Amino acid sequence: MENCIFCKIINRSLPARIIFEDEDTLAFHDINPQAPVHILIIPKKHIAGIADLEDGDRELIGKLILIARDQAKSLGLEGDGYRLVFNNGKFGGQQVYHLHLHLLGGRPLHWPPG
Amino acid sequence: MENCIFCKIINRSLPARIIFEDEDTLAFHDINPQAPVHILIIPKKHIAGIADLEDGDRELIGKLILIARDQAKSLGLEGDGYRLVFNNGKFGGQQVYHLHLHLLGGRPLHWPPG
Repeated sequence: MENCIFCKIINRSLPARIIFEDEDTLAFHDINPQAPVHILIIPKKHIAGIADLEDGDRELIGKLILIARDQAKSLGLEGDGYRLVFNNGKFGGQQVYHLHLHLLGGRPLHWPPG
Repeated sequence: MENCIFCKIINRSLPARIIFEDEDTLAFHDINPQAPVHILIIPKKHIAGIADLEDGDRELIGKLILIARDQAKSLGLEGDGYRLVFNNGKFGGQQVYHLHLHLLGGRPLHWPPG
């Protein structure tokens, strides 16, 4: 997608602090971190958001969660814990319309979650 | 798991306002809602949390997300938007150690997400 900033990060026309990449996913530090550790995990395929997922995306979306699990462990978050968040649409507070999973840790996350 | 309240909801020894069920998942209203709509989506298989997922759970966890997508649509949340949250461990604010996905909508969710 020509004007999607996350697609630009994927194709390296925008910089990001990338921490993980494989054939269909990418993980990088959020540019506006809300916690000591704040990572975004995205599919390389452009999907606008949760509401745009197709049934055939089930394994891909499951994989995003497992990558979050693995990155949380690598980043030393597993002991204290962490929160995973998907925002969808306006009330969800979604800012970029390329599906992304937030991984937040390094401090207690409060309740309600926003 | 004998002392798990979500396993008790699954086997009907504790009541809940259930809105969806199939062979391996269940969705019901959170007993302490943090938004006008606050649903929990859980696997019937007892998994303590995100950190306890095995690679073979990829399709199951992906399915939880797709059920959240479907329930959000059924509940009329798709237009305004919604937030999905997994808490893992103490800093995540996890209260029940049976994996559950929070679906929150019906009001703007703020940032940071807790």
